[in-house]
Amino acid sequence: MKKLINGVDDVVTEALVGIAAAHPELRIDLANRIVYRGDAPKAGKVGLISGGGSGHEPLHGGFVGRGMLDAACAGAVFTSPTPDQMLEATKNVDAGAGVLHIVKNYTGDIMNFEMAAEMAAAESGATVETVVVDDDVAVQDSLYTAGRRGVGLTVLLEKITGAAAEAGRDLAATADVAKKVNAGGRSMGMALTSCVVPAAGKPTFDLPADEMEIGIGIHGEPGRRRVPLAPAREIAAMLVEPILADLDFTGGPVIAMLNGMGGSPLLELYLMYGEVKAILDKAGVTVARSLVGNYITSLDMAGCSVTLLKADADLLSLWDAPVSTPGLRWGV
Amino acid sequence: MKKLINGVDDVVTEALVGIAAAHPELRIDLANRIVYRGDAPKAGKVGLISGGGSGHEPLHGGFVGRGMLDAACAGAVFTSPTPDQMLEATKNVDAGAGVLHIVKNYTGDIMNFEMAAEMAAAESGATVETVVVDDDVAVQDSLYTAGRRGVGLTVLLEKITGAAAEAGRDLAATADVAKKVNAGGRSMGMALTSCVVPAAGKPTFDLPADEMEIGIGIHGEPGRRRVPLAPAREIAAMLVEPILADLDFTGGPVIAMLNGMGGSPLLELYLMYGEVKAILDKAGVTVARSLVGNYITSLDMAGCSVTLLKADADLLSLWDAPVSTPGLRWGV
Repeated sequence: MKKLINGVDDVVTEALVGIAAAHPELRIDLANRIVYRGDAPKAGKVGLISGGGSGHEPLHGGFVGRGMLDAACAGAVFTSPTPDQMLEATKNVDAGAGVLHIVKNYTGDIMNFEMAAEMAAAESGATVETVVVDDDVAVQDSLYTAGRRGVGLTVLLEKITGAAAEAGRDLAATADVAKKVNAGGRSMGMALTSCVVPAAGKPTFDLPADEMEIGIGIHGEPGRRRVPLAPAREIAAMLVEPILADLDFTGGPVIAMLNGMGGSPLLELYLMYGEVKAILDKAGVTVARSLVGNYITSLDMAGCSVTLLKADADLLSLWDAPVSTPGLRWGV
Repeated sequence: MKKLINGVDDVVTEALVGIAAAHPELRIDLANRIVYRGDAPKAGKVGLISGGGSGHEPLHGGFVGRGMLDAACAGAVFTSPTPDQMLEATKNVDAGAGVLHIVKNYTGDIMNFEMAAEMAAAESGATVETVVVDDDVAVQDSLYTAGRRGVGLTVLLEKITGAAAEAGRDLAATADVAKKVNAGGRSMGMALTSCVVPAAGKPTFDLPADEMEIGIGIHGEPGRRRVPLAPAREIAAMLVEPILADLDFTGGPVIAMLNGMGGSPLLELYLMYGEVKAILDKAGVTVARSLVGNYITSLDMAGCSVTLLKADADLLSLWDAPVSTPGLRWGV
């Protein structure tokens, strides 16, 4: 295993030390592994919290800041944070307007966020709403998931919902935005290589030199099928077609994300986006906004994913609103 | 070779197609492989051009836009663009205030930019100044270089010099800023793995599973030495100490960049930055601004580099000025 780490047990905490050093505008609770925006809680604003296993950076800690999350809880690599972390974060971002939990659909995360919401209600009387992201069209009922997995759409949902909260919408309205995003978004990913979890020290799965995995999960969960390596053009079709088959994206503007899994160079990600865009053009899908880069990763996995989101005028204007986080920044 | 590409000969052009699709605010000349900011030439503004071999993305095409470059010329992977490309770009960004060429110190780039400057002067009477970046303390006289190589400092130089030009400074003053940055900046990099150039189809160099290369070049050129794998803390020292030995960074504010080579996850890059920052603190170096992520890469190479820049009040304010490019964006 070749990694820029010290001990395998200290990876997440030591990465948080680096985030604290690089981003003095954030506040890091190292003991509880929570990243807060520096000015949380914001009086009158709905508090937005997400979190999950580490190894998907910049998600979630890199999306904390003005116009996006108020706090992110970091679990061990590919492991849900504990209810205690979400409880602590919930109490600290609650300014009286309530708190929204954004949860990717994995059994552990669902359970732990639910427990935290109950404890917060009991302890401090906080009002907590929860939105579950389940956008992955690849498979139903995966290794760690009942139903569809939560993947790339989480990035878009955190941005758009964060803008709604920043604009002063109340808890119910902010949760409605999140649910609209989840209803109108779909994703599908693929891997050229496995990732290597530090504590395991070896690839999560074996993938022969001449094969790739279509429909991969962000923790290396099995996808739909293994196929021989193919040109980017064919890979793009293998990702876009199942998305378009699952939901009709014609007839209105769409936000498109071409996301890297962590180990694929930006040169290839842009090339892939060109192929995806050509397919969407041909299918009559109108891309109004796009995002290309590493936003929800799987450590050092080579590969990519495509996310599409139906975006009406309200969602587009929330997308365009200023955001200032380590991983996503514009307008400010 | 596992890559998200079609044919190996089309990688750069097809990536530019993707950049054009993702960034309608830019103008892409596919035939000449040039990325322009959409509103170039800007009347009264010094034109800023850079370029070099592809494979280092987001550098340079991802740094075109308001407050940074006016144009970037993309060569084949790890190969200098031709003089014709730089000539074309020079003519198209020249608004009468002159053009600054920002050139990383590689023999081919130096020669081709020089030829382009001479041709531009002869053809259109353009006034061209050139600044050469040579910040890599690792080695003197490398595989493609006489003197020191140009590496990570290029990112900081393009940002700061771009802000000077955007602020309306004239050609001489803009070139002076660039020279001040080059004089006050130093870098050093390391690799855990080789990169794979698409046209070669195999790793550029062999690096055993238990070794790393300290002082690596951004094209896989040999560094100072191969050593056994070590903890992040020791790697940070191997990068920072040669930089501090080369130039005194105490006594004033510093901009620090922890750059990923392309294949290392952000989790590790932040962890590395934490280690670098701890060493700088102990050495009495004051980090005023920082940047952590993949900014000047070597395709899919795993590894990182450290860049430090002495930044007086003028350079800091140019650093903080608004910038709007695919790879670097704030304040706008």
